[in-house]
Amino acid sequence: MLKQWIPDQVDPALCPETDELKQRLEAAEKKLEVLQLKIKEKKLPVLVLVEGWGAAGKGSTIGSIIRNIDPRFFKVTSFSAPTEDEQRKPFLYRYFARIPEAGKFMFFDSGWADDIMTKRLHGELDDAGYSSLVNSAKRFERQLTDNGYLVMKFFFHISKKEQKARLESLSDEKDTRWRVSENDLWQNKHYDKCLDVFDAYLTETNMPGAPWYIIDASGRKWARLQVLEFLNRGIETALENASLAVPLLQNVFPLAKMPKLSEIPLDKTIEDEEYRKELKVLQDKLSALHNRLYRKRVPVIIAYEGWDAAGKGGNIKRITGALDPRGYEVHPIASPEPHEKARHYLWRFWTRLPRTGHIAIFDRTWYGRVMVERLEGFCSTNDWQRAYNEINEFEKELSEWGAVIIKFWVQIDKDTQLERFTDRQNTPEKQWKITDEDWRNREKWDAYEAAVDEMLQKTSTTYAPWHVLESVDKKYARIKALKIVIDSIEKALD
Amino acid sequence: MLKQWIPDQVDPALCPETDELKQRLEAAEKKLEVLQLKIKEKKLPVLVLVEGWGAAGKGSTIGSIIRNIDPRFFKVTSFSAPTEDEQRKPFLYRYFARIPEAGKFMFFDSGWADDIMTKRLHGELDDAGYSSLVNSAKRFERQLTDNGYLVMKFFFHISKKEQKARLESLSDEKDTRWRVSENDLWQNKHYDKCLDVFDAYLTETNMPGAPWYIIDASGRKWARLQVLEFLNRGIETALENASLAVPLLQNVFPLAKMPKLSEIPLDKTIEDEEYRKELKVLQDKLSALHNRLYRKRVPVIIAYEGWDAAGKGGNIKRITGALDPRGYEVHPIASPEPHEKARHYLWRFWTRLPRTGHIAIFDRTWYGRVMVERLEGFCSTNDWQRAYNEINEFEKELSEWGAVIIKFWVQIDKDTQLERFTDRQNTPEKQWKITDEDWRNREKWDAYEAAVDEMLQKTSTTYAPWHVLESVDKKYARIKALKIVIDSIEKALD
Repeated sequence: MLKQWIPDQVDPALCPETDELKQRLEAAEKKLEVLQLKIKEKKLPVLVLVEGWGAAGKGSTIGSIIRNIDPRFFKVTSFSAPTEDEQRKPFLYRYFARIPEAGKFMFFDSGWADDIMTKRLHGELDDAGYSSLVNSAKRFERQLTDNGYLVMKFFFHISKKEQKARLESLSDEKDTRWRVSENDLWQNKHYDKCLDVFDAYLTETNMPGAPWYIIDASGRKWARLQVLEFLNRGIETALENASLAVPLLQNVFPLAKMPKLSEIPLDKTIEDEEYRKELKVLQDKLSALHNRLYRKRVPVIIAYEGWDAAGKGGNIKRITGALDPRGYEVHPIASPEPHEKARHYLWRFWTRLPRTGHIAIFDRTWYGRVMVERLEGFCSTNDWQRAYNEINEFEKELSEWGAVIIKFWVQIDKDTQLERFTDRQNTPEKQWKITDEDWRNREKWDAYEAAVDEMLQKTSTTYAPWHVLESVDKKYARIKALKIVIDSIEKALD
Repeated sequence: MLKQWIPDQVDPALCPETDELKQRLEAAEKKLEVLQLKIKEKKLPVLVLVEGWGAAGKGSTIGSIIRNIDPRFFKVTSFSAPTEDEQRKPFLYRYFARIPEAGKFMFFDSGWADDIMTKRLHGELDDAGYSSLVNSAKRFERQLTDNGYLVMKFFFHISKKEQKARLESLSDEKDTRWRVSENDLWQNKHYDKCLDVFDAYLTETNMPGAPWYIIDASGRKWARLQVLEFLNRGIETALENASLAVPLLQNVFPLAKMPKLSEIPLDKTIEDEEYRKELKVLQDKLSALHNRLYRKRVPVIIAYEGWDAAGKGGNIKRITGALDPRGYEVHPIASPEPHEKARHYLWRFWTRLPRTGHIAIFDRTWYGRVMVERLEGFCSTNDWQRAYNEINEFEKELSEWGAVIIKFWVQIDKDTQLERFTDRQNTPEKQWKITDEDWRNREKWDAYEAAVDEMLQKTSTTYAPWHVLESVDKKYARIKALKIVIDSIEKALD
């Protein structure tokens, strides 16, 4: 794509600063000023990825463009080498964590594309590793655009000669010498090799929903004009789509067979004494394992979903009771805060991922999308239907990163729930645990049960399977959970 | 993609014909019956491409699915070896020619994907040829979905063992022996090689807007259920999108520099006697060339656009005057007929392409999209903005096929038009040539001029350049046209 690309043969005439260039620049700047208000109004999130050759003028172009945007409406992020914390997160983490919120711009002064291409160039990725990252990038971009994001990808292109001249001129001046990086010099020396790698990456990731725009960066104002005009047009197009339904993709992940909830016998119990004994043994074991996975830097994610009053809280307590508080975190998930609602629904989970070697326990999870959000109409039909695949993709990222993923559905029957609700209502110190909403949800039991069945069937992948915890006897459920956690971690450590 | 694919591990349990399978089949069939009415109502065109292994049951599945559709709403096409006529058209011709009209289904019992994969398997395509066809297919699908088509692509998958058993069982029976083709047997013998090629093609063409759905074809009813459920879901999703704005792609084709209309001097003339002499010489030359290109099977496409009363008709007459009537066709293009309006706007031009060795002259063209349709609001802004690239892609297909493409803009000034309009009005035998619409268009001269300038700038590619014919002196314009036609054909023949 980059190699066959020929700069627009009409416009480079504008490269020397003609009147026409000035006029078009002014027009484009004015337009962007108007469009930023519409972006705000229509709550469009805009992610602008600016990639390209060293010394092609990426940073200065971003600098000149943001002068036309209200500072409250944009952010610019430039990524340097990943911090120690970022290194202990999945590849996409630092990009996903910084996606813009609805109605705002985020400019990435190079990002995931540069990250992948640079790794490839320096031999840090074999073919399989490269293609896995390319797929991650494509899924990331597709998830954003499917969820209403505008993703604009620019590649700033200059010739070998032009790059050389710029690097020399920067090096000549004492004040600008610091701007020439090792990597820039390396690029110029290996220009053709870089061109091959850039070309291949751009071609592979040139998706119709988030295409690449190659920018002829031979002139500074001329480059700015191209970016502004593409950006304005991209915004206008995105604003035309009120809400978008996108084709649902077929499941491509290996699924583990799951029973229907109604088929699961709930009569399992455990004797008090056995429970106490087992609990002690298992917690000791888990405690020891926690040390091992900390040293081996294996991240663990434990997700809890289940009926109200099914016993999630108590169950989680028996897990955390075995853990060193410095190595785990529990995330209770309620309805999203405004700044969370303003982003991709998985954002608040991406940003809560554990570091390698740590355990994150989610009390309610991203599966809210296909349960409460589905049933209460908080998202469109297309949104929740698409979510099964999006979630499988999300967990795939985590699994490829090396995470152990354990998902619990805490199961009780309707009668047991009623008993527990009534008990809560009648016991003063438990009353805070029961709300009107619990009663309302209970009325929709059948609809929820059907949604849960569909969820278990469609998202129990072999790399992130669901486990049903029969919790009419809460103690039984706790022992079962501990055993599954221990078993899963042991398998990962072997 | 195909290789990593694992059939849905929950559903194959349905493969033996369980009650659940029956229930789901009935439900899916009923749903399709309802959806077909919505398709009609919302004018959604649905193209279903069914590909897969020989003996995987493609044909019989299509046969069973159409039983649930009103026969007036669908067509099934199965492609055998291209006819002699099809061989003399571009690769995509026979597929584009058969796209469905709005509100109807078209089933392709294998199509362009099979065509490309088979060519690849039998060594008819080197890497460059293969990648060129893959790009054609991707552009084709993207143009359809961008223009509101639902494109559903299925691949019927069976194992080597299963295929072998089926082929043997078919061969054993006298009545079914004819259904086993040479190619089926070849496939089974070279199953792994085929799998490689299929996998690569599916992976490369798995676009978010038109993804592949792999069908586990191990059971007949089970395969039907999968297709029906995917199809229904695809239709529901497509129906949600009233009208869709899609990202505009950057031009990637080499452009020839074009002047603005206002910069073109119109004072060029030719003396009567010189005109007669030149005309004779040039027409003789063109006549001889016509023979040569017929023998060399070079297709030629001449496109005329220009102001009303600019002299297009007379100009075309001077070209055709030199041609053997068996080797050319003139296509006068008026507003589209209902059956044309019901399809992709380029369809009526795809179906009017010349055969190799022939000349097609278009009196008005596909550029109506970015002139009259743009200015009269017959299509959306996104539609006409997207059309520059779509048209460049269309002409790229023609050029890669080997066509000589010559595009004329017949230019006069506003005063000259007024003179000619008045003359037509006042001359009884010319009155038919002038309508109220001509006067109305004249009022929008400035808007049209801006649109023409944009068109010339954005679609004058090096492989299909625009030529402006200064036609205040019609004779001058005719001689110039003849020279350009001769010159372009000579270059192609050398």
